[in-house]
Amino acid sequence: MSYAAPVADIRFALEACAGFWRVRDTGAFPDLDESLLEAILEGVGALAGDVLAPLNASGDREGVRLSNGRVFAPSGFAEAYAQFIAAGWQGITANPSHGGQGMPRALALAAHETIHAANMAFGLAPMLTLGAIEALEAHGTDAQKELYLPRLATGEWTGTMNLTEPQAGSDVGALQTRATPAADGSYRITGQKIFITWGDHDLAENIVHLVLARLPDAPAGSKGVSLFVVPKFLPTASGEIGPANAVRCLGVERKMGIHGSPTCTMGYEDATGWLVGGENEGLAMMFTMMNSARINVALQGVAVGEAAYQKTVAYAHERLQGRGEGATAKGASPISVHADVRRMLLTMRALVQAGRAICYAAGVETDLAYHARDEDARRVARARADLLVPIAKAWCTDRGVDVASLGVQVHGGMGFVEDGGAAQFYRDARIAPIYEGTNGIQAIDLINRKVAGDGGAAMRAMIAEARATAHAARESGRPRLLRIGARLAAGADTMDEATDWLLETIGASRRDALAGADTYLRLAGDMTGAMLTTRGLLNAAPDAADAQETSALFFAETILALAPSRLSALKLGADVLFDADLGDAAR
Amino acid sequence: MSYAAPVADIRFALEACAGFWRVRDTGAFPDLDESLLEAILEGVGALAGDVLAPLNASGDREGVRLSNGRVFAPSGFAEAYAQFIAAGWQGITANPSHGGQGMPRALALAAHETIHAANMAFGLAPMLTLGAIEALEAHGTDAQKELYLPRLATGEWTGTMNLTEPQAGSDVGALQTRATPAADGSYRITGQKIFITWGDHDLAENIVHLVLARLPDAPAGSKGVSLFVVPKFLPTASGEIGPANAVRCLGVERKMGIHGSPTCTMGYEDATGWLVGGENEGLAMMFTMMNSARINVALQGVAVGEAAYQKTVAYAHERLQGRGEGATAKGASPISVHADVRRMLLTMRALVQAGRAICYAAGVETDLAYHARDEDARRVARARADLLVPIAKAWCTDRGVDVASLGVQVHGGMGFVEDGGAAQFYRDARIAPIYEGTNGIQAIDLINRKVAGDGGAAMRAMIAEARATAHAARESGRPRLLRIGARLAAGADTMDEATDWLLETIGASRRDALAGADTYLRLAGDMTGAMLTTRGLLNAAPDAADAQETSALFFAETILALAPSRLSALKLGADVLFDADLGDAAR
Repeated sequence: MSYAAPVADIRFALEACAGFWRVRDTGAFPDLDESLLEAILEGVGALAGDVLAPLNASGDREGVRLSNGRVFAPSGFAEAYAQFIAAGWQGITANPSHGGQGMPRALALAAHETIHAANMAFGLAPMLTLGAIEALEAHGTDAQKELYLPRLATGEWTGTMNLTEPQAGSDVGALQTRATPAADGSYRITGQKIFITWGDHDLAENIVHLVLARLPDAPAGSKGVSLFVVPKFLPTASGEIGPANAVRCLGVERKMGIHGSPTCTMGYEDATGWLVGGENEGLAMMFTMMNSARINVALQGVAVGEAAYQKTVAYAHERLQGRGEGATAKGASPISVHADVRRMLLTMRALVQAGRAICYAAGVETDLAYHARDEDARRVARARADLLVPIAKAWCTDRGVDVASLGVQVHGGMGFVEDGGAAQFYRDARIAPIYEGTNGIQAIDLINRKVAGDGGAAMRAMIAEARATAHAARESGRPRLLRIGARLAAGADTMDEATDWLLETIGASRRDALAGADTYLRLAGDMTGAMLTTRGLLNAAPDAADAQETSALFFAETILALAPSRLSALKLGADVLFDADLGDAAR
Repeated sequence: MSYAAPVADIRFALEACAGFWRVRDTGAFPDLDESLLEAILEGVGALAGDVLAPLNASGDREGVRLSNGRVFAPSGFAEAYAQFIAAGWQGITANPSHGGQGMPRALALAAHETIHAANMAFGLAPMLTLGAIEALEAHGTDAQKELYLPRLATGEWTGTMNLTEPQAGSDVGALQTRATPAADGSYRITGQKIFITWGDHDLAENIVHLVLARLPDAPAGSKGVSLFVVPKFLPTASGEIGPANAVRCLGVERKMGIHGSPTCTMGYEDATGWLVGGENEGLAMMFTMMNSARINVALQGVAVGEAAYQKTVAYAHERLQGRGEGATAKGASPISVHADVRRMLLTMRALVQAGRAICYAAGVETDLAYHARDEDARRVARARADLLVPIAKAWCTDRGVDVASLGVQVHGGMGFVEDGGAAQFYRDARIAPIYEGTNGIQAIDLINRKVAGDGGAAMRAMIAEARATAHAARESGRPRLLRIGARLAAGADTMDEATDWLLETIGASRRDALAGADTYLRLAGDMTGAMLTTRGLLNAAPDAADAQETSALFFAETILALAPSRLSALKLGADVLFDADLGDAAR
């Protein structure tokens, strides 16, 4: 069985859980209605299922090829990409004045989920292009917008993000690539960047690199970083493809997964580029792009989990073995009638469902942060979006690995055999907790900037919502919601206690707070996922969301139920970590 | 950095935690003393570190090759195997009358840990041979022993275990391979077996296949299965290599990991074999082999975790990035000074340490089950070993995946790049929860046969020991042990409650009990790992075990602390699993 876009589940998460229609209520999207939403989800979903999913395993087996400095994607990718851009799916959110559809980010997220699920390696190309569009829309000069955005919005040209250097991974301030002003107002960029996703390829005629570099005499560290646009081919005055720029792919990584996506080492040798935004303001701009990219990576965790779940549940219904405790017919039963197999399948589905709600909530709040009618509402939405981004990125990608691993397990021996198909998800999923800021970085961002940064206000507001949701669930008279509500209330209490502890501790001992950062994020994700799903159940018609209600109950009783016990790990403190002699075993 | 055998940690687990010297006290091993133990561990460890570890990555890259029905291991494996058998490490446990060293199983386990850690793919060959030795020693005729055991004990010949068929994975009773009696007392075996580890290769001159097949008119299901010995080359009367038997490798699997280990589809077409043990008694004999194989697979989970930990801690000390909260020098710090990185490293070490103690305890109790002086002691040890085997197999292999995944995470981008080395552990580790009985099967075995089977007696005895150990820890006056003891006591209480529930439930609703099987095993593993490690800390000199004490405290506060909260998942029941509409998402 191949992948089929789970449109009903996506709409449940987007509309019922994340409150998508609040975005339309801002008045910023007059053309948006339910039939357009459905048409976009069905349209992208069909492309994902029919065109991209069939290339997932073959792209994994074949991988990319570097030849004379040019990178070739796996067979069929270029043709699939042509279909993708012909349908106009790259520019869902882009400004209509540049050829985009001007739709909300959350809608594009929902559409792109199906692309990531069908073919995570492929999905990275549009994702990076989207980041370039957002950066140039927000910070580019009019001329830059005029030149690049129409080509990026159609997908004729793709975008990249060039941050990492060998000595500068999580620490972007340590980068060394130089930019020297030229007489004509452009710059000459020289340096080497690593881990550049879709840094070169044969899908599009041009590639727009956004590159972080240092101007001469720039301040040290992250305050001396500027952003440049460096196209692979220099455009002519009329915007046509001109001569090749001095940028070259020097190598592609041999990776564990996402083999269809070239991960390039890029060499810039006096390459021509143009400053984007102000001098030495590159990092802040990169963070704008990163917030969007982080939600997209979070969504990859959900998407790869959904794909693994679909593959696995189909296998479990088809694979005959033994006689399960739910068996009704004679002879061997499908393994899906065994309680322990069902436990694994339901765990997969419950984690995907919660993660999907978190991602779409982050997307919806981001839209509201830009488009809500009054400034106060925009401010509140911005704070919520900022809070949700690191939670989404880390929680959803960690759970993506868990889900893919369960998928392998249900497949048994076939899970470990590459032709079984489950193994690829396990390998692909593993990158998401690493790139766009490791999950450890997300946890630090959450406690430092997003929680301590406003004295806990945004988090307290979300905890209050969780408590109100729990209350509504308990008042609903629906037996499962009663149980879910009890667990959610306990989860909210736990988060309150965790937040008290964090705010008290972070001033007194930053080290102790950091030692608990991962646990704090885990608690926040468990509560948020349950809160959003519960809200969805309260908003949706009960009959329409029966499957979601079962998953939510399972989540509450088997995952959220652990929340109170996690406080001991949260509060453990750093002494045990720093007392531990970690040198001894490296002897 | 390559792998170095962690002899001190192994001895802590074997001696202080698992009480290894009780095996000597049986009187069955008069030559066994501390210097012999140390010599064996150092000797095997040196071969592992110097010879096998350097072939781990190259074997992964190169994989195995099938050519004209013959399988070739990766370059260097045959030479390494020759060194392994020349040193006599195959026959550590084998009977001295057949050329073995006659040492306890637990000692062989400890020695083989280092082989699995250095090169998990390689380690499977000796592991399977060991299984063949044990089966023939227990069930072979004198002539079979005379013929095969000396060659297997030296490692000149290797062994395999042929259970699985396409339609018979976890359900061994469904197998269809046939055995027809021949006039000379031998049998003609016909059928196909899949997933046969080291089913063919070029390391040894002959391969002794142990094959499950059905005699004509055998009862249906698992009661009609017999065991046969089917050598690749038929031995002559004098035991020399004779003509080729009608057995052939038909294909090798393309797997996610352990690429250096051939996983073969084996075809038997009127192959000549001889019955081992009684007719239709094959399954019981196979279970004998499987108990031993399961402890070895459990140990692979520990071993791959140790290897991942060593690689990762070395990387974390070497990789400079940012300024950590534990930084003392100026400039970039090694990432090992960041609290969150230390959290991951300590989690890895704590899980490896607990798993190692569980495996060696299973090994020591197995030795005592055979060799304790009086029957009562043997019976008690057998019950404990039987209880520990499924816990070890499932808990240690699941944790092996967790540990390997953390290793990838600490490596950041380099973790996902194959040349970084961490990825291989993540891929290799994933098979261990699947083979030798999936972990779901282990959980069912634990609750049905090992706990409910004796009315909970063996489990209650272990819980009582955990409680006594907790008491001793709290009385020790050592501050960390005080805290560990409190968590262990709570873990024991939780296990008591879980066992009450299980025994009440399993008669009333088998389905409900099975729905909680995985959680029950998880709880048992967490408690057992903590109990054994705590016992080790009480037995060892405090100064000598400082690192172990830190890990144990961390384990208690971050992992065992979750135990009470897991009761809600345990008691959830099957209704939610079977109510869940799992067909809907496969649309």
